[in-house]
Amino acid sequence: MDIAIRQQIFEDAKEWIYQAGQQIREQMNNPYEIDTKSNANDLVTAVDKSTEQFFAEKIRGTYPGHSIVGEEGYGDKVESLDGTLWIVDPIDGTMNFVHQKRNFAISIGIYHDGIGEIGLIYNVMDDVLYSAKKGEGAYREQVKLPLLRDDVKLETSVLGLNAQLVCENKYYNAKKIQQLIRDCRGTRSYGSAALEFAHVAEGILDGYVSMRLAPWDIAAGIVLVEEVGGVTVQATGKPVNLLQNSTILTTNKQIKDRVIDHYIEFN
Amino acid sequence: MDIAIRQQIFEDAKEWIYQAGQQIREQMNNPYEIDTKSNANDLVTAVDKSTEQFFAEKIRGTYPGHSIVGEEGYGDKVESLDGTLWIVDPIDGTMNFVHQKRNFAISIGIYHDGIGEIGLIYNVMDDVLYSAKKGEGAYREQVKLPLLRDDVKLETSVLGLNAQLVCENKYYNAKKIQQLIRDCRGTRSYGSAALEFAHVAEGILDGYVSMRLAPWDIAAGIVLVEEVGGVTVQATGKPVNLLQNSTILTTNKQIKDRVIDHYIEFN
Repeated sequence: MDIAIRQQIFEDAKEWIYQAGQQIREQMNNPYEIDTKSNANDLVTAVDKSTEQFFAEKIRGTYPGHSIVGEEGYGDKVESLDGTLWIVDPIDGTMNFVHQKRNFAISIGIYHDGIGEIGLIYNVMDDVLYSAKKGEGAYREQVKLPLLRDDVKLETSVLGLNAQLVCENKYYNAKKIQQLIRDCRGTRSYGSAALEFAHVAEGILDGYVSMRLAPWDIAAGIVLVEEVGGVTVQATGKPVNLLQNSTILTTNKQIKDRVIDHYIEFN
Repeated sequence: MDIAIRQQIFEDAKEWIYQAGQQIREQMNNPYEIDTKSNANDLVTAVDKSTEQFFAEKIRGTYPGHSIVGEEGYGDKVESLDGTLWIVDPIDGTMNFVHQKRNFAISIGIYHDGIGEIGLIYNVMDDVLYSAKKGEGAYREQVKLPLLRDDVKLETSVLGLNAQLVCENKYYNAKKIQQLIRDCRGTRSYGSAALEFAHVAEGILDGYVSMRLAPWDIAAGIVLVEEVGGVTVQATGKPVNLLQNSTILTTNKQIKDRVIDHYIEFN
């Protein structure tokens, strides 16, 4: 992707994110509708929808040739990664938005012919923007994030991992996940995949595992983590496919193989 | 406890907490020693120790008749709850302090003849103080926290609960905890018991369960949660005993019995 064009897209996306963040902060204290999607705990609010609509209008108005994949359906029917693609989660961590009024993020990943060019994750209530451009490093606000430590061991790792992952199920061996929990130093769970990716990029989590994530949960985070020397793969070890939901491991490279080889076993 | 004396103790404790917080922020960017205690993941740093020592000196200098229970051993050998007792955790969430440089707290509970009179939990890096005095309500900074909602159901609850709780063990039935996770709306884990208590008091978590907590992890939080109409008990349902480690449930009253009766089963 042309560097000057990319810079313009980056500046526009940032401006729209700040505008959307301001709108979310204004709307969140008024009553809003809450619906559920795939199950009773898969929440969506009128604020998620209006925010995605805002981005869709901005993107279509300014970049009519680009495609949009969005969580709430205001995007396009995208079947390939050709061209320039905006992958948008207007509110990542909707349960936190509803229950906590904090700990949620706007997440936008911008890909060109399948390559992650820009990643933006905005912690709306903390007013903290994580950003990355391919080859130019990752930032928390204006501060460049250092490369991830190269001396991380599983035994001293803190992992992002929800308790749900440990429950017995028909898809994978939960006992091995229990062993992972015993073998690492500790686990945390914040309820926003985008923020957990950002925390991996910051090095305050050494890895994050989740068994069912959508493209909009991970598209921005992948670019951020890549720029600090981390890696994101399917939990099977295969490359991520941004056209489908995936099991995901994003992590410091030092522990990737050990996690996949020793603790993740699909049935 | 005399209200005027309590107010003076409250003001002193607050002042010392802000001083200690400033010292922690200054010390954390210098090299400091890290040791382990009961196991390789039970961390303690020179900053925990110097902070507890600071509190012990302040308390002894100003209130020579009071007793101190502290995590790091600068307190007294306390065998009863008679008199006025300061229960101090200089850094609650030491793993977060070491790995994240955020998400940890100073926690001080002040009890008189076994009654929780004052609770103070200071999120050091966010510079947010949670405080409560028995009968006078709980505050986040200067804002009085509302009473907890009286329409909370387990199905729509978000619980603080670490993945470790779900792992099979010889003490309790982990399968029942798995069922709790399936039946509630979601779980979070922040790695600081004091902050999870504060989040219950704020109503952004509806409950918090942990199987092994010490008096200094919970003493301040109990007062906070009580002041917003919540309740803290041993996970067996028995009253908390501040002279020993306990399994703990702190929660909105609406879901307490259901959690204890249906999901917690000791062997």
